[in-house]
Formats: sequence, C-alpha cells, structure tokens
Amino acid sequence: MTIIDIITKKKNKEELSYEEIKYAIDGYLKGEIKDYQMSSLLMAITINGMTNKETFDLTEIMLNSGEIIDLEELQPVVDKHSTGGVGDKTTLILAPLVASCGVNIAKMSGRGLGFTGGTIDKLESIPGFNTSIDINKFKDQVKKIKVAIVGQMGNLVPADKKIYALRDVTGTVESIPLIASSIMSKKLASGASCIVIDVKVGNGALMKTIEDAKKLANLLVEIGKQHNKKVVCFITDMDEPLGYAIGNSLEVIESINTLKGNGPKDLTNLVIELASYMVSMAKNISIDEAKQEVLENLNNGKAYDKFIELVENQNGNINNIKISKNILSIKSKEEGYIKHIDALRLGENARIIGAGRLSKEENIDFEVGIVLNKKVGDYIKKNEELLSVYINDKKLPEEEFIKCFEITKEKIEENKLIKEIIV
Amino acid sequence: MTIIDIITKKKNKEELSYEEIKYAIDGYLKGEIKDYQMSSLLMAITINGMTNKETFDLTEIMLNSGEIIDLEELQPVVDKHSTGGVGDKTTLILAPLVASCGVNIAKMSGRGLGFTGGTIDKLESIPGFNTSIDINKFKDQVKKIKVAIVGQMGNLVPADKKIYALRDVTGTVESIPLIASSIMSKKLASGASCIVIDVKVGNGALMKTIEDAKKLANLLVEIGKQHNKKVVCFITDMDEPLGYAIGNSLEVIESINTLKGNGPKDLTNLVIELASYMVSMAKNISIDEAKQEVLENLNNGKAYDKFIELVENQNGNINNIKISKNILSIKSKEEGYIKHIDALRLGENARIIGAGRLSKEENIDFEVGIVLNKKVGDYIKKNEELLSVYINDKKLPEEEFIKCFEITKEKIEENKLIKEIIV
Repeated sequence: MTIIDIITKKKNKEELSYEEIKYAIDGYLKGEIKDYQMSSLLMAITINGMTNKETFDLTEIMLNSGEIIDLEELQPVVDKHSTGGVGDKTTLILAPLVASCGVNIAKMSGRGLGFTGGTIDKLESIPGFNTSIDINKFKDQVKKIKVAIVGQMGNLVPADKKIYALRDVTGTVESIPLIASSIMSKKLASGASCIVIDVKVGNGALMKTIEDAKKLANLLVEIGKQHNKKVVCFITDMDEPLGYAIGNSLEVIESINTLKGNGPKDLTNLVIELASYMVSMAKNISIDEAKQEVLENLNNGKAYDKFIELVENQNGNINNIKISKNILSIKSKEEGYIKHIDALRLGENARIIGAGRLSKEENIDFEVGIVLNKKVGDYIKKNEELLSVYINDKKLPEEEFIKCFEITKEKIEENKLIKEIIV
Repeated sequence: MTIIDIITKKKNKEELSYEEIKYAIDGYLKGEIKDYQMSSLLMAITINGMTNKETFDLTEIMLNSGEIIDLEELQPVVDKHSTGGVGDKTTLILAPLVASCGVNIAKMSGRGLGFTGGTIDKLESIPGFNTSIDINKFKDQVKKIKVAIVGQMGNLVPADKKIYALRDVTGTVESIPLIASSIMSKKLASGASCIVIDVKVGNGALMKTIEDAKKLANLLVEIGKQHNKKVVCFITDMDEPLGYAIGNSLEVIESINTLKGNGPKDLTNLVIELASYMVSMAKNISIDEAKQEVLENLNNGKAYDKFIELVENQNGNINNIKISKNILSIKSKEEGYIKHIDALRLGENARIIGAGRLSKEENIDFEVGIVLNKKVGDYIKKNEELLSVYINDKKLPEEEFIKCFEITKEKIEENKLIKEIIV
C-alpha cells in the first residue's frame, strides 16, 4: 500500500477501505505522508465524495488519533455544536438554561476565525472569565454546578487539527463527509452522550443550500448512531444574523438580556427549542414536558442565576463588561421592508473593525461590533437607524454596512429560523 | 485573486482565465504558493479536466517560465518525442537516419524513471559518450553533422520541472491536459519547427486506452498549431515491448543492428514510418518521396555511418559496449501461441535487476536487461527459450519473468504497431 495508490483510488471514485484511510491519516500524523500528498487526497475526496462507510471509518480513525474524555461518572451529559454563523451566541444562553433544568452540560468550545465568532472569545470578553481549566477541575465544576464551558483541552483529535489547518489553505473546506467527520470526531472525543447540532444554512454559513445542510445533518445523525450516541440536528437559517448583536461584549450583553427574558424573538425561540431537545434527551422525557421546564426556568430567573453561577465559578465578573463608547449610527437611505441582510458580509465587516480575526495569532477587540436595529421583514423609514457600529481604532466606510441590506417596497415575511429538525 | 479562489473555481468545474493560471504557476515558481496548494489544484484539474483554451494558456505560461532555445539559423529542425515505453530505443536509430537524409535534428532527451527507459541512459552505456555539452557546441555539432543528442540543458521550462516532480508524488500524473502541456512546453522550448510525437498506448504506457491516446494526440497537434509548429502524432502499441531488447547496452546493440538492416520487424517499421514523416515535414516533400530516401539510407549504410559519426562527435566508442556475461535462459513451461506480453511488468523486472531506477539518485547498471526470444503471435514449444536475462548482482525469481507471458492454443495475430497517425 502506498499513498499514491490510495490517492489514485479516490481519484477514480473507488471506495477506500478502513486500512487505507488509516494508513493515510496515521501516516500524515507521523509526517511520513506529506502535506502535498494529503491535500491531493483531500481534493479528490472533496470532488468525488465519500460513501457513508468511508465517512464512518474516517471519523473513527480521527477519533482514535488522540485522547478521548471519559465523562462516565457524569452521564448523561449533553453537548451542543453549531457549524458557525454570524451573531450566534446560543451556547452562552443554552448552557446555563439546560443546567438549570438539572442536566449536566460539559462544553468545550472554540475561538472565532474569519467571519464566524467563537464562544470562547465571547466568554473572555467577560473580565476575568477563565476558559482554560484542567480536565479534573472541569469535571468537578460540572459535578458541582452542572455546567462548565472551556476552550479545547487535552490532545483531542490531533488528526482533525492537522487536517483542518491544511483544508483551510487548500480549498478543501467545503466537503460534507470531511465536515461531518471533523465535527463528529471532536464531539465523540468530548465524551457527552447526547449531542444537539445546529447546522446553519444560508449565505452566512458553510452550507449554502438546504439540500447540502440536510445531507450533512443526516450524516451527523448516522455517525452518532454508529457510536451509540443520541444526536439531534437542527437546520437553521443563517441568511441574516442571529439576534441583533454581532461582536463579543455586545453578544454577551444580548445573551444576558435573553436569559432575563428580554432577548430577540428569533434567538429566544431557537434557544428554547434547542434546550427542549437537550433536556428531553438527557432526562428521557417528551419534548413537550422538557419545553415546560425550559420555559419555566427562563421565566423564573433560574437560567439567569445559573449563568451568574457559571461566570463566578470561572472567575468572571459581568459588572465590568466593556463596550466601545464610540458609536456610529447608520441610517437608511430609503424606505421599505428589509428583504435581505447579508450575514456573511456583516460578519466580515465585524471582523474588519476588530471583532474577529483572520489568523489564530491576531488579537480581538472585545468592545467593538454591530447592533442591528432591523431584521428581515421589518419596515424602515428613510433616515431611521439601520444599525449602530461600536468602533475603536479600526474604521470602515458607512457604505460597507449599508450594502448589507436589501430594501423593497413589497411586504416581506420574516425568515423562518428553524427549517428542519433531524433525529 | 487568491490561490484558494482559483482552486475553488476548478473544484467547481469552472474555466480558469489566463491570468488565474499565470497567478498559480508564477506564484508556485516563486514559492509564494505552496506545494500543498499546487497539489490540491493539480488534483482538481486531474479530476475535472481543462478546456482546450486552459491547456493552451497553461502551455504558454509554462513555456515562458524559462529559457527558449533559438534554433533559427538551423531551421527547419526536427524533433521527436515519445511518451515513454518499454524497449523504446527509436531515437537512437531515428536521429542518425533522419540526419543522413539531410535533415537537421537537434534532440534533447531525458533519463529513465520507473519502468520506462531514457535515451540519455542508453547513450551513456556507450563508453565515453558525452550527453552534457553546452548550447553552442550543440548547435555547432548540428551545423556540422546535422545531428546531436544531449541531456536537458539550460533553464528550460522550470515550471514543468517543479510541477512534474510534484505530480509524481501526488497521484496527479494521469491527466491529459497536464501531460499535453508538459510535453508541448518542453518541445516548444527546445526550438524545433517540426515535431513528431509517438504516443504510446497500452498496458506498458501512460495512456491505457486508444480513446485517451487520441485525445492526447489531438491536443498535442492543436497546441502545435497555436504556436505555428508542424506536429504529427503517431499512436503506437505498447502492449508488448518494442523490439526484443530491454536494458541500456542491449538496446544500443539492437539499435546498431537495426541501423545495419538486421533489426526486429516492428522496430524497423516504426522507425521508417516516423522518419518518413520527419523528412517529409522538414523537406516539404510527400511522405512517399521521403520514405524512398529513408529506405535507401537505411539500406546503403548511410544511416549507420551517421550514427558512428554522431557517437564519435560526442566522444563515444561503440567497440567497448559491455553486457553482462551472466545470462539466464528462461524456458517456456507450455506450448502454444504468445497471446500477450506484459510490457509494464517486464519493464518493472528490468528496473529491479538494475536496468532502471525508481528515484533520480539511483545508479543504473548498463550491462543488465532482458532479450525476448518471442513476440505476440509467435509459436513456442515447451522448453523452448522465452527470453534471456542478462544479470549482475540484483536477482529476480524465474516465475516473475514467466508470468509476463500469456500463451494460448489458438492462433494469434501479431500486434498492429501503428494504430493511427494524427496530423
């Protein structure tokens, strides 16, 4: 067996065996197979696809390339993943909400890259919040208060780390089997038994069409079944940003408002639905029963209290969250209904003014970002505020924000956020 | 423009513009585009193909990446290329034959790699033969005796050198547009105005089917037209080795015999046909007239004399060609007609016993090789000699040679060597 044989097989659309995939992945991790060989194989996979069996094998081989966190003593533990979008702060609300219902949630999150934000960056905009605690303290915290959110720890799925970095620079990100095995190997290594995955679809997401999103969702659920995990996939809209706030401190503030019952409608509804499935899975109760509990705890303040408990346990202080005082109010130049908001471009704009980063080494300015005043379906008058930009040293011309909005005279329905739920 | 955009475009089967291809090739030569990015692009091209326009552009960009040899003062100059096969020693016979007809032939040749031999290695098995002379001496020799054969010189098509080395280790060799642009950029840089290309087809060749061989041949002719060069493509059989000898010194000896009029039928016929087209193109005479001259000079000894002149001008001495004295005679275990000879496997066997190399650094043993006693269509008795193996220190079991032959009771027609000629 040589890597050339394996590449050639995939180039010719043949199915790779478990041994062949293992040879490629292990050899790449050891450095025997070179970057240029792996990228050639990844492109062949991106174009010619993988069968479900190949994807299952790849996931398992990647999973076994590193440590696997053992959460046996805490089970059932729930976990949640989002394929990444603009303004997606659901984890910040969902985690304490679910924990307030008595369900263990042990969450490892990532940092933002490109136009998508990351939960860890958002949490770190809370002064003092410590996202790097060790595995034992992490488990202890879940035991004690049922919730902990930390950055990546341990040597989890090193194969995915190395391959993901390569995909990022070789045009091989957009492959459903590669995305599925990347997500699931990490989720399986994180140790939870119930996993909810929010597959974003639309202009501001990796999956641009509902068909691709469904393919990915089905594959994620299937991989979960192979490993005896309960996996539920939501397919949700990312044609406009989620909620109104984009940017780290601004999103934390919006999350706090949502936990207090004053959140944006789309964000609140999504959080309630996601939480209901998570509580239902973990407690083995119906979705309706679970939803009752979730609504109760959102309304009686228990979810908010749990958030405060989480922040305090990880040394954060919500009284000191800083946002820029330099606020640019951007007005509409026309009157009509908001037909479309370009989430991708808004995400890029937020990154450019400092809310995000292009490479891992860059620093983020927690204080900056965007707060929308209108969402799709809303009516706006001429000179009414479209959005405000919280800005520090990095500027961007007003037109760059204005061109993210499409305004029409015809009445527009608001976006349907949850497109489908796949179990 | 970024390399990721270009890779993504080709991944999505879109046509790349001249500027995009130039950006990729120039960036790669400068080291700004990395091996792992180029290999990803090459795999996308290998799977999704290239339009003729893309292939023309790629050829031109590669051609202009380095020096171009100016043979203006010697025109018309003819050149010949073979896509590589087992036992293919045509250049050794063809070059002096064509020159003896008064046609200038200035030939740069390559070394063997894998199961295919290389003209330069074969010539170097003639003691003293110097294949690395400088460009001025090369031109002077052609002026003086009408023929010179040397190794690669100057900084010709550096883009092809770098890309070919990468294709070799990334499973992206088998792509018709990449093969076509690689061949033609080198041929165009070598400066001849009339080019004959022998596209080998079959088990022992890069092109496995006649359809692929035709596609490649048509593309080569089209690229030639774009550059106002006369290009003729022969599609010839490589399902069995050409002639009887495989291995460097053995092939030189077979070439000398052919020049003396005692060569194998298939090899002799191919050389006559190729030479006729070359002479016809260069002299602007009909193929039939050209063939008359070619046959005459092969029969009256002028072609052989020209070979001796060529060897002497490059300091070689044909009286000292060494072949191994250790000869293994391999007998047939059955009786019948030779149905098939596995050229690829025989080529690999010849390499293993030392006649070839897997990497550029390996040395070649000029003395070893294989001489067939039978070809496809021949009848063989039990215990009659199938082939002899000239061997030194590297051994291989007898069965490895025997399994290259398929023998049947039914009468078999001999292979048709020239499948098609494309102008």
